[in-house]
Amino acid sequence: MNNNCYLGIDCGGTKIAAAVFSQFGKIITDKTVFLEGTGGADAADLLCSLIKEYDDFCRHSELNLMSTGICIPGIVYHDSGKVWAPNIPGWDHYQLLDDIQKILPDIPVHLDSDRACYILGETWTGAAKGCHNAIFVAVGTGIGIGILADDRILRGHGDIAGATGWMALKPPYNKKYNDCGCFEYYASGDGIARTALEIISEMPEYTGVLKGTDIKAYDVFTAYKENDPVAKKTFKIVIELWGMAVANYVSLFNPQMIIFGGGVFGPAIQFIPDIKKEAEKWAQPISIKQVKICASSLGKNSGLYGAGRLAMINS
Amino acid sequence: MNNNCYLGIDCGGTKIAAAVFSQFGKIITDKTVFLEGTGGADAADLLCSLIKEYDDFCRHSELNLMSTGICIPGIVYHDSGKVWAPNIPGWDHYQLLDDIQKILPDIPVHLDSDRACYILGETWTGAAKGCHNAIFVAVGTGIGIGILADDRILRGHGDIAGATGWMALKPPYNKKYNDCGCFEYYASGDGIARTALEIISEMPEYTGVLKGTDIKAYDVFTAYKENDPVAKKTFKIVIELWGMAVANYVSLFNPQMIIFGGGVFGPAIQFIPDIKKEAEKWAQPISIKQVKICASSLGKNSGLYGAGRLAMINS
Repeated sequence: MNNNCYLGIDCGGTKIAAAVFSQFGKIITDKTVFLEGTGGADAADLLCSLIKEYDDFCRHSELNLMSTGICIPGIVYHDSGKVWAPNIPGWDHYQLLDDIQKILPDIPVHLDSDRACYILGETWTGAAKGCHNAIFVAVGTGIGIGILADDRILRGHGDIAGATGWMALKPPYNKKYNDCGCFEYYASGDGIARTALEIISEMPEYTGVLKGTDIKAYDVFTAYKENDPVAKKTFKIVIELWGMAVANYVSLFNPQMIIFGGGVFGPAIQFIPDIKKEAEKWAQPISIKQVKICASSLGKNSGLYGAGRLAMINS
Repeated sequence: MNNNCYLGIDCGGTKIAAAVFSQFGKIITDKTVFLEGTGGADAADLLCSLIKEYDDFCRHSELNLMSTGICIPGIVYHDSGKVWAPNIPGWDHYQLLDDIQKILPDIPVHLDSDRACYILGETWTGAAKGCHNAIFVAVGTGIGIGILADDRILRGHGDIAGATGWMALKPPYNKKYNDCGCFEYYASGDGIARTALEIISEMPEYTGVLKGTDIKAYDVFTAYKENDPVAKKTFKIVIELWGMAVANYVSLFNPQMIIFGGGVFGPAIQFIPDIKKEAEKWAQPISIKQVKICASSLGKNSGLYGAGRLAMINS
């Protein structure tokens, strides 16, 4: 036993969650603050005051704060310490690490993308605890994956690996995929609504609950429970694509665990057995037997735990 | 300057190539021996006698043989040192590393799969020299990829990452993909011939050179040069799938370089600009700008150079 601990900060578009973790991934203390539209240097200052506060807390509690990890809702450029986070005003290639290090030169701080933090969190204390090769599929407004390969986050040449929303799954190419990629077009949260609307446009006889409304993924899930034919068709298409995506992760990465999370999983957890069945058709037959497919066990806290783990592995 | 050198051995289905490399990847001496149907322990003995021979050679030449790398035409299980190589009789989970270490306990020997060696070779002295994130797409009878991510070979949980032939690219699932996977079904060497035969079966009016013959990929390439309509249709389909596959590697791995090699590239090198054009439609738009797509520069020697590099990085 020692008194080493690690500060994890999950920086979202609307709020910031922070927690001090023990070396075993237990939360010692935590809190949430709201961004309220803050961005740029003000958001960086807010992070610094949080870090300072917990640094003081640890000092007074006779805990050794070893390092801080911050989960960024976007991309982290590791060479420069710059971040790109579309939901935080002014964080477009913003010098976040520089800002923090100027104010707090003596506290080691590490940044990583949300998708990287999700898989770090789940392999630390969540559904993939102890796995060395695992993938987190974050399905929200968009789709991204966090990839842990032999205990290391896969980042790629320009720090943007894991952009699975752009996966090509349905030839021929259609210009409607231009803005978000083929897989995301159909199978993200927004994609579920888009797919339902496409089906409705081809079913003039349809008069169900989804007709003519400005629908969201949530509505399609609700309609599905009521056996709505458009919702049923929508999820048939989306489950096929989720299954193909899983098959591709399995064949390419040979992971031990694939974890679905994000706002859509949630309600789509009910489809995991169907996704698995679809993946089994397509995937490398030995690899598919080696993988477990399940839902996130940390839920909305994956990023927070991942930030704590990020601090720990870099200290 | 020092006298350190590295022995690389490329073990194929019919022959074994061996070379002593300088630390800069220059070949000091090399030779090829034929397997002539040898397998099992006899093939292991043959490898040992080659290693012994070069160990003696280095001693007499005042070179320090630091380590040996062996490229295996199949899968290497790193925990056990066992190999699976379908073209070498008896090498089905065969204890190759144990066999070699029993005979040559004092010489460090490292094994890796052919796809891993291909990308190690190309990033050492070939088309991807100096790249830290690169992919080798080996298109022969089947299709596999070797993946280098942040300077490390991506192996996966069970050492079978890179099984790209099983990539799901064309829904809905068809039972004809059962034996080799969807991408390989259409786009490997055998796949090119299969695709041409499928097209012919749907074109009763066709009377061209590919009609009724037991065709191979080679024949489809020859017919393509003569503007044969079946060959043209075949490569339209295959190029689309190669382009989609490249897009998926780009979006998932964000590599600096993708290299096509194997027997099919070769004659398919002419299609690389078309493959790139197709990939540009589908891939993550920033990642696709960061990648270069080209043909192997080491050709048939990628595995041999990769084996030398394997020896070097493990010494």
